[in-house]
Amino acid sequence: MKHNFGAGPGILPHEVLKQAAEAVVDFNGIGLSILEISHRSAEFEAVLDEAVRLVKELLGVPEGYSVLFLQGGASTQFAMVPYNLLPETGKAAYLESGVWANKALKEAKYFGNVEVVATSKESNFTYIPKDFTIPADASYFHITSNNTIYGTQLKQFFPSPVPVVCDMSSDIFSRKINVADFGLIYAGAQKNMGPAGTTLVVIKDEILGKADRKIPAMFNYQTQIEGGSMYNTPPVYPIYVSMLTLRWLKAKGGVEAIEKENRAKADALYTEIDRNPLFKGVCAKEDRSDMNVCFVAENPEHEKPFLKLCDEKGIVGVKGHRSVGGFRASIYNALPITSVHVLIDAMQEFAEKNK
Amino acid sequence: MKHNFGAGPGILPHEVLKQAAEAVVDFNGIGLSILEISHRSAEFEAVLDEAVRLVKELLGVPEGYSVLFLQGGASTQFAMVPYNLLPETGKAAYLESGVWANKALKEAKYFGNVEVVATSKESNFTYIPKDFTIPADASYFHITSNNTIYGTQLKQFFPSPVPVVCDMSSDIFSRKINVADFGLIYAGAQKNMGPAGTTLVVIKDEILGKADRKIPAMFNYQTQIEGGSMYNTPPVYPIYVSMLTLRWLKAKGGVEAIEKENRAKADALYTEIDRNPLFKGVCAKEDRSDMNVCFVAENPEHEKPFLKLCDEKGIVGVKGHRSVGGFRASIYNALPITSVHVLIDAMQEFAEKNK
Repeated sequence: MKHNFGAGPGILPHEVLKQAAEAVVDFNGIGLSILEISHRSAEFEAVLDEAVRLVKELLGVPEGYSVLFLQGGASTQFAMVPYNLLPETGKAAYLESGVWANKALKEAKYFGNVEVVATSKESNFTYIPKDFTIPADASYFHITSNNTIYGTQLKQFFPSPVPVVCDMSSDIFSRKINVADFGLIYAGAQKNMGPAGTTLVVIKDEILGKADRKIPAMFNYQTQIEGGSMYNTPPVYPIYVSMLTLRWLKAKGGVEAIEKENRAKADALYTEIDRNPLFKGVCAKEDRSDMNVCFVAENPEHEKPFLKLCDEKGIVGVKGHRSVGGFRASIYNALPITSVHVLIDAMQEFAEKNK
Repeated sequence: MKHNFGAGPGILPHEVLKQAAEAVVDFNGIGLSILEISHRSAEFEAVLDEAVRLVKELLGVPEGYSVLFLQGGASTQFAMVPYNLLPETGKAAYLESGVWANKALKEAKYFGNVEVVATSKESNFTYIPKDFTIPADASYFHITSNNTIYGTQLKQFFPSPVPVVCDMSSDIFSRKINVADFGLIYAGAQKNMGPAGTTLVVIKDEILGKADRKIPAMFNYQTQIEGGSMYNTPPVYPIYVSMLTLRWLKAKGGVEAIEKENRAKADALYTEIDRNPLFKGVCAKEDRSDMNVCFVAENPEHEKPFLKLCDEKGIVGVKGHRSVGGFRASIYNALPITSVHVLIDAMQEFAEKNK
């Protein structure tokens, strides 16, 4: 039994994987694999429709928004957002709270002007800047809701005079949000929604059409909306598995229920980190992420032996990102609290051995 | 038992599907699903490496070319090709042999000038134009090797004074080609290589860097080459299943062996179409595709009852594209000749009943 704390592509629910495997052999008893049916078939259209409905229901998407399943990951959104929303002579505001935010703003510079309203780069992104003004003449304000690498998370969203664009790749569907607060939300599937290969985009229709730029079909949100995510062949299987994962989430009680579980998992783990004399957290307490729990050993020489102990316990994916070091336990929706307890037990056992 | 003649996403080998399903539950016995492991894991890196090696081996890719697995389908390549290769004041030459070629050239117009060297639009693309000159001052010459909708296929490639860019989405790996004749080859996976969700790009490195344009990271071939198809999280599962399909092809004897099988399947089916008084082919005989066999009923009233008979025999996916009508039997690599004989038998049975 493995306890998968990987940062992404991350853990998926066991029931989802079982059904996802069956569909590869025979999808819904039709005698064909989900991998070899037309995306225009009634069978797949039903999958895509259900996926869109589930996103709307689980996030509480209001009228006037479109839900898209695209390709290319969040990195493609880094470019599509300014391509569609930022006029050449316009300005976009970015909050630089991590490397992904930095990559996003770099792409925006190809299309117009960028104002970085604040950054925590000087502290290696150990906190989220909160003291800044969003320029009212910006085309949009871009934020990253959860910083996977550093383990920080926006606990409250900023009131904004301009549309807010949010990269929610690593905490979408993990907690309640008010979609009406956002102009555009995007998220690579591979943390909390499904496997790698599709990207969720939730977009307020009225923010489109203002950049006055000709945009190739595939990079144009309007084309994708008109095509219902099927302007061209969509990534059938990643969308199917995402749909199964969203079904699983709904059956569990939706975002409200999972948020409680996620909070309980995070609380248990942070409590141990703060209590255990051998470990310490790496970022500002008020910004600690409920998705990616980053910590280091007080004594760097303890890192390797602790990773070895984890390996023996079936705990995988807890090595920290190279730019932070130490450990990172990603505790996405699908990770059961029992796995968190296995990790806590390992930390306690390690402290006992090394005291 | 279904006989899958779908145009794409199309049939995959039975053995591949079996292994692909197992990996969704437990990948290579590591206790985790292929859907929930890091793309940076040794396990997935081995998959991607093998996929690239198999492409090089099966296509005979010479030195100086890069092999990429990207996202977004051929439709994204329609834009990436001119984004990377066509200077704003430059010119690209396109052969308009079908709707996909038309879509490709429309995207190129966003980036520079386009010269359509020839078109068969006036005949609803029932043949491939061959009498034209490729302008020597073009940045590249774009062709579509196989026209899925119309059932036409380029039997010989044109000598060109400029780099040839070829959309091989529907006949890649189906017949021998000389990669050195091309500057860039691209193909959506979902016909002959794997499931929907990844796109193969084979690119001659030296044709890059000449468009003098700033290109966002994800749309820039150079970034993708430097990142080894992992500039961002790649579509793990579509690449994995593509790798399995390429392994299967290699075990069958590679492209040379499958080309013989494909030829035999196509010959058998076209022979029946030409012999059977109830059916007729729709395109120029010399351009007939070995991948997509398009035909119609001599008497339009026979269409529905023949589709009904096909349905009874487990023959699926043979309804023609709406812009051509009639029937289209896609006979991709993974379709066994036994399925072709089931279709031929159905045609003969139908002719017998309706004579």
